[in-house]
This record gives sequence, C-alpha cells and structure tokens, in this order.
Amino acid sequence: MSRITLENLPDFIRGTAILGTGGGGDPYVGRLMLEQELTKCGGVDLIDPDDVPDDLFAISVACMGAPTVFVEKLPNAQATVTAMRRIEKELGRKFNAIIPLEAGGVNATLPLVVAAQMGLPVVDGDGMGRAFPEFQMTTFNIYGVNCSPFVMADDFENTIVLETDNALRTERYGRAVCVKMGGIAQVASYAMTGEQIRRTCVPRTVTLAVDIGKRVRELRVEGKEDICEGLAAYFATSRPPRFARVLFDGKVQDVMRGTEDGWTVGNVTISAAGDSSDEMFLTFRNEYSLAKLNGKTVAIVPDLLFILDRETGEAITTETLRYGQRVKVIGVAATEEMRTPEAVEVIGPKASNISEPFVRLEDLAWGGSS
Amino acid sequence: MSRITLENLPDFIRGTAILGTGGGGDPYVGRLMLEQELTKCGGVDLIDPDDVPDDLFAISVACMGAPTVFVEKLPNAQATVTAMRRIEKELGRKFNAIIPLEAGGVNATLPLVVAAQMGLPVVDGDGMGRAFPEFQMTTFNIYGVNCSPFVMADDFENTIVLETDNALRTERYGRAVCVKMGGIAQVASYAMTGEQIRRTCVPRTVTLAVDIGKRVRELRVEGKEDICEGLAAYFATSRPPRFARVLFDGKVQDVMRGTEDGWTVGNVTISAAGDSSDEMFLTFRNEYSLAKLNGKTVAIVPDLLFILDRETGEAITTETLRYGQRVKVIGVAATEEMRTPEAVEVIGPKASNISEPFVRLEDLAWGGSS
Repeated sequence: MSRITLENLPDFIRGTAILGTGGGGDPYVGRLMLEQELTKCGGVDLIDPDDVPDDLFAISVACMGAPTVFVEKLPNAQATVTAMRRIEKELGRKFNAIIPLEAGGVNATLPLVVAAQMGLPVVDGDGMGRAFPEFQMTTFNIYGVNCSPFVMADDFENTIVLETDNALRTERYGRAVCVKMGGIAQVASYAMTGEQIRRTCVPRTVTLAVDIGKRVRELRVEGKEDICEGLAAYFATSRPPRFARVLFDGKVQDVMRGTEDGWTVGNVTISAAGDSSDEMFLTFRNEYSLAKLNGKTVAIVPDLLFILDRETGEAITTETLRYGQRVKVIGVAATEEMRTPEAVEVIGPKASNISEPFVRLEDLAWGGSS
Repeated sequence: MSRITLENLPDFIRGTAILGTGGGGDPYVGRLMLEQELTKCGGVDLIDPDDVPDDLFAISVACMGAPTVFVEKLPNAQATVTAMRRIEKELGRKFNAIIPLEAGGVNATLPLVVAAQMGLPVVDGDGMGRAFPEFQMTTFNIYGVNCSPFVMADDFENTIVLETDNALRTERYGRAVCVKMGGIAQVASYAMTGEQIRRTCVPRTVTLAVDIGKRVRELRVEGKEDICEGLAAYFATSRPPRFARVLFDGKVQDVMRGTEDGWTVGNVTISAAGDSSDEMFLTFRNEYSLAKLNGKTVAIVPDLLFILDRETGEAITTETLRYGQRVKVIGVAATEEMRTPEAVEVIGPKASNISEPFVRLEDLAWGGSS
C-alpha cells in the first residue's frame, strides 16, 4: 500500500482517530474533507521515509487549537495552503512533499487534504507518532529540525510568521495568537530536507493508521475475538513491533473538562465493569497523558493511551467523553525515538505538568483485565 | 529648531511626558536612552512634514505593552532595530527616515533613539498627536496607511511578522503575543511614503513636545503665573492653536489600577482643594480617556487630558498616580484630523469602551477652576 484512496480511507480515518490518543479532534471532519479531495484526485501517494531522496523539501502542515473548538469551527485547508505558500516565499524555495506533524486526529488527515489539492506526495511518517498538545513536542524538534519559520493563518488569509530561537517559545507565542484567532489556526512549519526527515521522523505512521483501522474492522467482522484485545495483540506484529496491553475495561463514571488557554483539559474516571471496585483515572490535555489504576500509575506520556468503545473499537476523543460510555483503555509503547532521554525531556511527563518520572509501559505493574 | 540635541532634550522629555496623556511610561527611561545616544551623535535632525520629499520611505517604531511593565522591563532599542530590519527584508527596500507613532511617552523618545543609532532623520509629526493604548488608533490607519507588515521583536531577537487585512486585527493578535513576551514588545510598522506622511500624520508634534516642555520650564523660572494655567494658555499660540483649559485643581483621593490583557487600566478620583466638595473622576487605559466633574463629562477621548503636578507642571502618568498628589487636570482639544467622524470611530469613546458620544472639549460645560 503506497497510496491513500477512497478505498482505504475509512480504515485510515479510524486508525488516525485511535492514534490521536484522545486528541486531534473529531475524525468525522477530517474524513469529509479528505473524501471530497480523493473523489477528485483519486489518491495521494505516500513515500516511505527510507526512500526519501535528498532533494525532497517537505513542509509540515497542521491545525492548532483545542478539539472542543474544532467541533464547531472546522479546519481550513485553504488557509493551510496560504500558510505553506508564505513559508515558500520566506525561504525562496518550493516544497515538493508534505510531512504530517501528527499521526493522529485531524492533523493526520489535513496533510493529505492539502497534498491532494496541490498534487504533492506525503511522507509516510510524522513528528509525534501519535498526537501531542504542543508544537515543540515533535521528534523533528527533539532531533534538531528548526520549526521556524512558523507560519499561522486565519480564516481571512491573514498570516503571522514567527521566527524564534526555540520551538517552545514559538508554541507559547503562537498559542496566544491562536486563541485570538478563535481557538483555531492553520499552521505550516518545520520545513525539512530529505536527510532531516530520514533522521528525525517517526516512520510509517500513515500506513500504521491504515493498518490499525483495518485490523479493527476485520476484528469486528470476524466477531471471534474481543476487538480491543485483538487490537492490542496486533501491535506485536506492527513495524516495528510494540508492547501493548488492554489496561482497563469499564464505564465512564465522571468527566471533568474545560477549554483553557487554547487546550481541552480535564480528567476522566472509569469504573470497572461488574462487581469490581477498581477505578481508572486518566488526565488529559487535548490527549490522554496519564492513567492510574486505583491510584497507581499504569501508563504515562509519551507512551500512548487509547480509550475505545468496548464493542466497536472506535476511538473516544477527549471532547466526546461522557458518562456511561462502555470503554476499554489500551496502553501502547511509544517507539524508541520517542523514549530517548532527550525525547522524554520534550514529550515526557514533565512537559505535561506531571510530576512523576517516565517509566516504560512494559515496566509498570498493573492489574489489568488480561 | 530642527534638531533634538542634549540642549533641548530636557524640554522635549518633559513635553512628551505631558503629551503622553497619562500613558507611555516613565519619561525617565526614555530620557536616559536618548541622552546616551545624543552624547554620541550630537543630535537628531527633524523633517517638517510639509518638507517631506516623495522619495522618503519611513517606518514607525514603538514599544508595545503596559506602562506598569515598562518600569521594570525597559524598552529595547536593539530589538527595535531588529524589527525594522525585518520589515526592510520583507519589503526589499531600505528606510531613510523614522516617523514616531505616538507624540507622548517612551514611544515619542524611542524613534529618536533608533534614529540616532542609525543616523536617520525623524519626521516632525506622529500618528496619534498624543499617546493611545492600541496600534490601530492612529491617523495613519484612519486615513488609509496599512500597518502591515507589522513586526514584533522580543529581547532575544525573535521576530513575528503579522500581515492582516486590518489594523485592529493586528492589534488583537499582536497584543496576545506581547503579553507572552513579558508584557513588552518592540514593534516596527506602518511603512510609509512621503505622500502618505504628508496626508496622514499629526504634524509638528515633536517640536510641540519641546515647546510644551520649554513653556513649563519658563513658567517655573518666571514664577509669576500659575504653571498649569500658563500651559493651558500656551495652546492658544501653538501651531495650530488649540482650545485648552484647566479643568480641575485638587488632591488625588483614590486610585484603582491593574494590569489587564497587557494594559494598565483603572480610574482615579481627585477631590477639590479647599472647602469645595467637587470631585473629578477620570478613567484610563494606559492613557486618560474620560474626565467627569461631579458626574458630568467634561472631557473625552480623543481630546487630550493631562494630570500635572500643580506646583512643578510635571506630568503624572497613570502608573505613578498615588494618594495625596496635588494635581491640576488640563483638557486640550485634539487636532482637527483627530476629530473627523472617521477618526472618532477609531480613536473616540467607543474604541475605549466608553458608551458616551464624543463631544468637543470646548462644547462641554463645566465648573472648572477658572
């Protein structure tokens, strides 16, 4: 599979929603946008990171803001192109590929929408291997790619070009503008060469999303196996293989959620199915960042946390959590490039204001459902 | 007088503090900065707006933020030059003059500091004829000069280029970044041709500041006349002549002040000297915007309000107001270009969230001290 087409679109969308780890917004919006483009162009070519040539010059495009806002105010592909064109003007060089910033949520779809509109290929990889709430939280930044020039565009084609000495500062300045733009902004950033892509990206996350979505669909059709258990088992065969496990099975008992400083923040408490008094508590800022089982940490960023509908295997995002949902919580190990000490510094617990140290999912003890 | 030199610097600084209409920050800071430059270069040439040639290409430089912040975090001339250079890069054209954005406060001084550093002349005029709290509140904007590209720079030489369809939007986006930059940002904007300057600026406000400062000094030395009455009388002879009047004489009774969204906001109550129960109440956002005598409006933006020390005639800025100060309040008519219907729309009461209509100072009734 080297293309995203109308045929694998439903699998891809399902997979990006799951890889959104709770964030990244309603997958329905991204699906509609991409479906429209694929109907016109037939498909978007993917380039394996291993095959990226040196003369590739790619740009990362994304939507900045809180998923709670995305529900009402849709991502704007045209403004994204405006942002991208502005960087080209700034650098005096045209881009010949798009690279996703995130593997999950709307920001996994938007690059394909833009690529389809512009007839460009998309690199099969991204800078997060999931979704994260901030722009400096990328392997691009961790391994030395400059996020500047960082261009934001609003719905009126107004642009802002940020050039700073570090990605965290860009995030802080840009987020403040994003709030004033109505809680959503279109962004182009991390202009990258082929060498930088090969060295820094989390590889093959576009095809990973397709595979995850496909696996969930197959499990649903087969009906032989528990979907969530089956999905956790799938990761043993993914490329590269990853540790994954169903951490909890229960019912959403309580949700605290707000929109603060441009993010969707809060927590959710899930009580165990049946007679058990077990409780799982997860905190989130756009994405799920920490899971505690009866007060004991069982998964922590940058490792991935999914909350899935226990019957359908569909992702439940942080802005759609509500009382009574029957869910399973899955923990998946982040890839190795996301777990190095320098990576954990930028995308680990401290960066999400969690005072605990990062411990690998596979080293944390728990009394999960399996 | 066609230069600012060490000789007329004290008068100029005193005058800019008064024309700051309460805002624009501590004049002491601006004085030190400019004194240092003038010691090196000898003086800065002024160009009368009537004499501005067509091939003049000027840029407005300013410090954005709350005066309460300026006291601790000084304006940064180097970063201002960075912002200016960034616009030159953007437009592909060098500036050959500086035009002040404001006639009052630190932003009346900063253009001269930058001009001295760069060996450029300064246009004897500005875009506000006083100080105002927001960047769209300029005659430049009112009469059609685009404020974009609008460049902000922080102390680390990070830059942000804003290009929007209107100055109010630029102000909103820029202000949010300013707060994240620590409440102060250096700005270059309103790149302008000679024709635009002649058509839109409030003329001769640099020399006006010098004249005001000089007049106060002379009145102090002469000791024959009340300084504030004498200053009000001076405006009958200014170029152009303007209506001005001492509105109140009293003691600061109460000050409410905060720093909100990047501005110094609040109000001050002044009680009459002697046995009178008269009270004057002024509101401010960086600058004084409304004066009420016993509940009745006696002056309103864009007309100018000064609160001066009643003995020395020195300006009292909104961030230095405190209980017990003996003050006089002077109202001065804004110039005609600031009082047109289109100007009042942008710099009048509504723009400062005051629900009253603009009425000219000379048409408002009052029972002032004269």
